[in-house]
Amino acid sequence: MATVVMKFGGTSVANVERIRNVARHVKREVDAGNRVAVVVSAMSGTTNQLVAWVREASMLHDAREYDAVVASGENITAGLLAIVLQSMGIPARSWQGWQIPVITDDAHGAARIVEIAGDKLRARLDGGEVAVVTGFQGLEPERNRLTTLGRGGSDTSAVALAIALKADICDIYTDVDGVYTTDPRIVPKARRLSKVSYEEMLEMASLGSKVLHARSVELAMVYKMRTRVLSSFVPPDQMPPVREGGNDDIGTTVCDEDEIVEQQIVSGIAYSKDEAKITLRKIADKPGIAAGIFGPLAEANVNVDMIVQNLASDGKHTDMTFTVLESELPRCLDVLKSAKAAIGYGEIVSSSDVVKVSVIGIGMRSHAGVAAQMFKALAAKGINILAITTSEIKISVLIDSAYSELAVRTLHSLYGLDNE
Amino acid sequence: MATVVMKFGGTSVANVERIRNVARHVKREVDAGNRVAVVVSAMSGTTNQLVAWVREASMLHDAREYDAVVASGENITAGLLAIVLQSMGIPARSWQGWQIPVITDDAHGAARIVEIAGDKLRARLDGGEVAVVTGFQGLEPERNRLTTLGRGGSDTSAVALAIALKADICDIYTDVDGVYTTDPRIVPKARRLSKVSYEEMLEMASLGSKVLHARSVELAMVYKMRTRVLSSFVPPDQMPPVREGGNDDIGTTVCDEDEIVEQQIVSGIAYSKDEAKITLRKIADKPGIAAGIFGPLAEANVNVDMIVQNLASDGKHTDMTFTVLESELPRCLDVLKSAKAAIGYGEIVSSSDVVKVSVIGIGMRSHAGVAAQMFKALAAKGINILAITTSEIKISVLIDSAYSELAVRTLHSLYGLDNE
Repeated sequence: MATVVMKFGGTSVANVERIRNVARHVKREVDAGNRVAVVVSAMSGTTNQLVAWVREASMLHDAREYDAVVASGENITAGLLAIVLQSMGIPARSWQGWQIPVITDDAHGAARIVEIAGDKLRARLDGGEVAVVTGFQGLEPERNRLTTLGRGGSDTSAVALAIALKADICDIYTDVDGVYTTDPRIVPKARRLSKVSYEEMLEMASLGSKVLHARSVELAMVYKMRTRVLSSFVPPDQMPPVREGGNDDIGTTVCDEDEIVEQQIVSGIAYSKDEAKITLRKIADKPGIAAGIFGPLAEANVNVDMIVQNLASDGKHTDMTFTVLESELPRCLDVLKSAKAAIGYGEIVSSSDVVKVSVIGIGMRSHAGVAAQMFKALAAKGINILAITTSEIKISVLIDSAYSELAVRTLHSLYGLDNE
Repeated sequence: MATVVMKFGGTSVANVERIRNVARHVKREVDAGNRVAVVVSAMSGTTNQLVAWVREASMLHDAREYDAVVASGENITAGLLAIVLQSMGIPARSWQGWQIPVITDDAHGAARIVEIAGDKLRARLDGGEVAVVTGFQGLEPERNRLTTLGRGGSDTSAVALAIALKADICDIYTDVDGVYTTDPRIVPKARRLSKVSYEEMLEMASLGSKVLHARSVELAMVYKMRTRVLSSFVPPDQMPPVREGGNDDIGTTVCDEDEIVEQQIVSGIAYSKDEAKITLRKIADKPGIAAGIFGPLAEANVNVDMIVQNLASDGKHTDMTFTVLESELPRCLDVLKSAKAAIGYGEIVSSSDVVKVSVIGIGMRSHAGVAAQMFKALAAKGINILAITTSEIKISVLIDSAYSELAVRTLHSLYGLDNE
């Protein structure tokens, strides 16, 4: 008998018919004798509607009230799924975040889970009842207010619940059947990975892959919680139920790197279009200038990613280029313009026509020359590199967005990822 | 400085623009220095959608899960109104039923409020903060589950909150500007009542007037909470703010009968089309037969209203006619058919083409002859009376629905209610 947490996202619960399909997946696990907790998102579209109403009410809104409004969507799906399960003869009850409770900090809109009281729930699961838990939400106990975890937070809810319940596996059901070497819409030869390490998945999630939310992977990595990506659209009776210890016969299992026997040097190619490039021209080439630029941005919560400082042409002035999320560009420009006198720069130039392409692989730790191969292959295709960042297991380059598909396909072939 | 509870129904908060209008009503009271708590319903249509989803999930559903789902609508409006108020510079926070908490019994779907902890809220109001409270919901503390109060429950929430806060008045904002002597769509000469007694309002609410929910009036009557019916569509700045003790310069004030100086004999004419008539033919005319019929109906929670037992024609058999809510007719017929052998009747005949017309007035207590006048006037118009029930302050007759408008107009004129 295994304990399994199953998480279903918005498209998997988009209407009652799909919720019925979700219930059949749950039934498969119950019939196999497993203890089951289910985490659900809001029906797709619901959260967007709620956010739109909040913005219509006021662009400057109290984050606590925002949370009180947008947490409503998950309550609806949790109740509906409990009802459908009961109608199939499966004992079930819905649990809202505050009822468990899922304790979070007070960072409303992007709260972090502090603790989940798993004992009460575990006892219910032992008694054969399915727990249907609202994803995305929590309770800030000091003021007794609802919190939400931010976009993609339901993945994090699921992993945290799996940890609290000491589950054998945390199964994340989505609209794709696993994690691919790259986006199959760009590279039809992309392969599904049957296993991927926590570290690699974390890089992929941070670098543009939308399959799992980065924070959930981080949590899974810290607690070594095996997490699997599966499709909810595969017929429920055509999937094997979870076995003790967690299985990996379908989907993609995110697990410890030691489990991955045939480790490739490069596991995947990620790309992100949500990038913007900013260049400050004619800044003084003197100590402290970087702090003068990036201090105000950090205070305004703008995340700066890649940074390139050109050599000073005249020994006095230089250019500084860096990237931020495209969605944060307007805020970033506001901050820089109001700090113009303090920083001292000639002009400011920005562009969103850039894309970040990344090569990710645990194998890079022990193999030299991956970066050199990459730069050479891109150069051969006439692709100009605007900026570079690296870590132990990834190399990212910023390029003109017109070349994004070409770059991804080139690198996918280069590292032998194409499906034969 | 007065303490006022303002309640806004679904049509008054149907979208963000209307919520902004509601906020302007609240601002008027805040600007006048009043302590304000606001009770809101779900946006119109939301609760119906949630109920439809629950029914699609399963016709036989766990009432606790039903409540968990349908309570969501109020959370959305409460948060949005708090945001709009804040954007107008008014300190405000939303309170969900479980946060206050609004303690109810465990009759899920039709729960009764047991207690509202008003002290914490009162302290906040004293500090100048507007409390925006979700109507319709509560918390069953034993199992820590959400409850809902049933249709029209937000009126009850508002009155209960006003009692807990010792408010000067409970203002119920609707889409009409008060309580009328009868439905103005049927009788254009209908007059708005500036005051109406609790007892009369209770009869009106029970007998078809949809302005206030009967349970809320009952509660107001028991605790003598002055309750006012107002239109939310009157421009907010064209209404006087509430004064200490509660004013009655606009709308209709539901209050103690002693306050009503010029008491009419009849205050209003109500009618209800949600009626069905059932006749059981050829039942045995013996003791215990009524219990045999109405026992099973009571067990099935079918409310029986009027009852007429004909004289036995042959000394052995008789007919029994009674009325139930039209919406309960199918269930009622199911119960009677499955109990046919036990009851012993010849045939069952039912019809929904009936209407109940009622004449209501506190003055009837001290004036004889009201009923006689009524029967005579209806007879003069050729309207046949199918059944009669009376109380100290009302007379109801069941008639063929084709005559409903004629009957209402005739009685409205008869008792001098027409506007000159």
